[in-house]
Amino acid sequence: MAISVETFFLAPGAEGTLQAQIQQMIAQGILSGRFRKGEKLPSSRQLAQHLGVSRITVTLAYTELLANDYLESRDRSGYFVSENAPEPPQFPPRVSRRDVVDWTRALGRKFTGGAMPDKPKDWSQYPYPFIYGQTDPGLFDHASWRHCALRALGQKDFQSLAADHYDQDDPQLIEFIVRHTLPRRGILAEPGEVLLTMGAQNALWLTAQVLLTQRRTAAVEEPCYHALRDILTQSRCHLVSVPVDRDGVPPDLLPSEVDVIFTTPSHQSPTNATMPLERRQALLQEAKKRDALIVEDDYEFEISFLRAPLPALKSLDTDGRVIYVGSFSKSIFPGLRLGYLVGPEPFIREARALRASVLRHPPGHMQRTTAYFLSLGYYDSLIRRIGQVYARRRKVMEAALDAHGLGVEGRGVFGGSSIWMRAPEDVDTEKLAEALKAKGVLIEPGLPFFDAEQAPRNNYRLAYSSIPSEKIPAGIAILAETLRSWVDH
Amino acid sequence: MAISVETFFLAPGAEGTLQAQIQQMIAQGILSGRFRKGEKLPSSRQLAQHLGVSRITVTLAYTELLANDYLESRDRSGYFVSENAPEPPQFPPRVSRRDVVDWTRALGRKFTGGAMPDKPKDWSQYPYPFIYGQTDPGLFDHASWRHCALRALGQKDFQSLAADHYDQDDPQLIEFIVRHTLPRRGILAEPGEVLLTMGAQNALWLTAQVLLTQRRTAAVEEPCYHALRDILTQSRCHLVSVPVDRDGVPPDLLPSEVDVIFTTPSHQSPTNATMPLERRQALLQEAKKRDALIVEDDYEFEISFLRAPLPALKSLDTDGRVIYVGSFSKSIFPGLRLGYLVGPEPFIREARALRASVLRHPPGHMQRTTAYFLSLGYYDSLIRRIGQVYARRRKVMEAALDAHGLGVEGRGVFGGSSIWMRAPEDVDTEKLAEALKAKGVLIEPGLPFFDAEQAPRNNYRLAYSSIPSEKIPAGIAILAETLRSWVDH
Repeated sequence: MAISVETFFLAPGAEGTLQAQIQQMIAQGILSGRFRKGEKLPSSRQLAQHLGVSRITVTLAYTELLANDYLESRDRSGYFVSENAPEPPQFPPRVSRRDVVDWTRALGRKFTGGAMPDKPKDWSQYPYPFIYGQTDPGLFDHASWRHCALRALGQKDFQSLAADHYDQDDPQLIEFIVRHTLPRRGILAEPGEVLLTMGAQNALWLTAQVLLTQRRTAAVEEPCYHALRDILTQSRCHLVSVPVDRDGVPPDLLPSEVDVIFTTPSHQSPTNATMPLERRQALLQEAKKRDALIVEDDYEFEISFLRAPLPALKSLDTDGRVIYVGSFSKSIFPGLRLGYLVGPEPFIREARALRASVLRHPPGHMQRTTAYFLSLGYYDSLIRRIGQVYARRRKVMEAALDAHGLGVEGRGVFGGSSIWMRAPEDVDTEKLAEALKAKGVLIEPGLPFFDAEQAPRNNYRLAYSSIPSEKIPAGIAILAETLRSWVDH
Repeated sequence: MAISVETFFLAPGAEGTLQAQIQQMIAQGILSGRFRKGEKLPSSRQLAQHLGVSRITVTLAYTELLANDYLESRDRSGYFVSENAPEPPQFPPRVSRRDVVDWTRALGRKFTGGAMPDKPKDWSQYPYPFIYGQTDPGLFDHASWRHCALRALGQKDFQSLAADHYDQDDPQLIEFIVRHTLPRRGILAEPGEVLLTMGAQNALWLTAQVLLTQRRTAAVEEPCYHALRDILTQSRCHLVSVPVDRDGVPPDLLPSEVDVIFTTPSHQSPTNATMPLERRQALLQEAKKRDALIVEDDYEFEISFLRAPLPALKSLDTDGRVIYVGSFSKSIFPGLRLGYLVGPEPFIREARALRASVLRHPPGHMQRTTAYFLSLGYYDSLIRRIGQVYARRRKVMEAALDAHGLGVEGRGVFGGSSIWMRAPEDVDTEKLAEALKAKGVLIEPGLPFFDAEQAPRNNYRLAYSSIPSEKIPAGIAILAETLRSWVDH
């Protein structure tokens, strides 16, 4: 690769001769790793013209660098970074700058310090990844997705892909969601009541910004999705955690004063509890009494392979107080970053304006590809295939857990992709996860899902979304054996 | 298309017989437009099984709907929505729900009401679109982009495309930016000092959230990019507008107390003023005196076809007080939604945590496609081609403006994609734009860029990024003629 002449600037007010400055510039480029072995430098004529210096100045600088083995010349083809040039350190600290800004003062707000657990990025390299929320490459319908992506890249769709749509969404995708996706959850909505988001994460974030302030109270399930708790903590609202039982959040435990209730009725996150119909109606009643809104995160509803899921809470809502969050991240893949919000128009209007200010809109290509993937029917067959495979995995999983007598705390009635587990009381699952990782088994400790100081440390989550059936028994055996050896000690 | 059986739910506690409920469900589906003419219904067996009712109940409901011409039966192939079925209204208001939520109270914060000008979405249908910030399909390297997108969709890249990367970016893209893009602006940065964003809009938004609070002061250029002013207004910081002159923002007019200065030194937005080197240094000096940070929006630096651009302000910054915003949206296409922030690590760390909370990361496929497009050299040749075409358009534009004696207020020294114009003083360019639109000419009124109550109403922007050279003279002629007739009245 040739090094572009535009990479070179003479620093205004720099010390030393022009020749030295050029020499230094090149040497520093090599030392800092910007220029690599074998890369071609601009010709002396080009560089001289670009910098506005005489050609002999550049030639002298190059000659000096040749002598020092930074550069080598190849007959008639010019100067190259020498194969013997000094090794660049891996992005060393620069000497030319010293930060004088006091960042503890300069930062207006801090956003670090959330509970995002440290998940290994190379999880797919582990033999037994009971890891949640990642895609199984063996299950995904790669060919059809490519087909849809290519179709969306066609000339006909170019404007929809490339244009700045300001605050608008792809009408094809919105129409499909309104006509086909939402009716499956018993939800009737108009296009103006739906907003696309960058995954469920972004949907929850937008909702919190629009509905909550320092003077408002939100209720969350305990345990709950840790990223949701981070979002609510950042919003600085008053936050009340309501412990869930085997049927999800108990409506009668809601605080008497509450503005917004965040809930996951289909598969409680992370316990997998499914809220029965009667409790859903009671929850709506309690919300009405308090004039509170409900945010229903209906993630994973598609993953219902045991029986048809109950209609969404939103479908029972005659007051317009439920805001519904859906996502394609679990069912297509999380890197897609595509979800949606359904709610009354006054709410969607504000969320749309905020989304436009924050990021405008999700990329056109992702929206149109998804619209094709859905409307051509690939999505439904993917879901069916995933359901069949997960059903098999779940069976193998339950058999293995039973055989080893491991304590199951919650499993989805309709399906889902994980089982919520309980280790013996004195086991700290964060330490357990560390020990298992060394043996090739990845599990998810339960602690980050809890808010309370006295939270149990012995829960953990086992997902079967990214581990093949045939690996499950051996993985569970290692887990059981490790647990046994811990408890025996 | 077949209507999925999962679309059907029996409403709990509904009135009437099961048969009537089923009939109603289907009729309402047709009336609401969810089921369309010619679509196939589930077989009576399937639906009966799904709803847990007897098959005869479903058959009776279907027969009733046949008689009422909602459905038609085709020999042995089942029931379909009749071609004679009642026409659904275009998303009529639903009768079954009445919102009882008081949204004026329920909304914690309002985000609507920004200055986003109303730009026609069908701009490409107009013969003379002097419109800014959209992609010219005739200029884009469609084939190479498809090639890169396909490559990124390959099996090898699947994990990078599909995975949930939490708060991380595509290392390939970051490496290219650090090694090749930033050095062209004279900027040396380490990977930990760069964060990908959903376009420059998202970069500016993240920056405002991290740096500003109600107790901080931000300075913006007057006029400035209206979306930036909306972002800062929403952050509730104290906001000071500093009028720009022909060299951009004058450092000596900065308020004595200021925390963050937002500036566009390369091409002032919207006037196109280019800040000379001496003023850049003076600006850094003044920022230092006030211990203020500078946010440099370096949009469009690639569009420098007249001469090489000056190094970025960030390249002169030895204190670590400049935060740099770059974007691929202008040079590739805005629907891509990909930009980046460069700044000291303590800042990038907070911006990264906030981005993770708001949306996790830009979609993997967009990141990897862009990484290929850059590293395979397509990007540079696209930029060169764009530069050549814009140079020609700009020449034609200037000749036409000269010929008609139209008042130019600002044009980029290095290039850019627009010219900032000044109509005679009594012309309101919002009205002018309306009148011109009716004649097929799209221009952008200047008012939304200004903050002051006494802002001039006679500025406007003419872009040449989406109008072919051969259309320019006729478009400018219509503009000149319209202006003449207005002033004569």
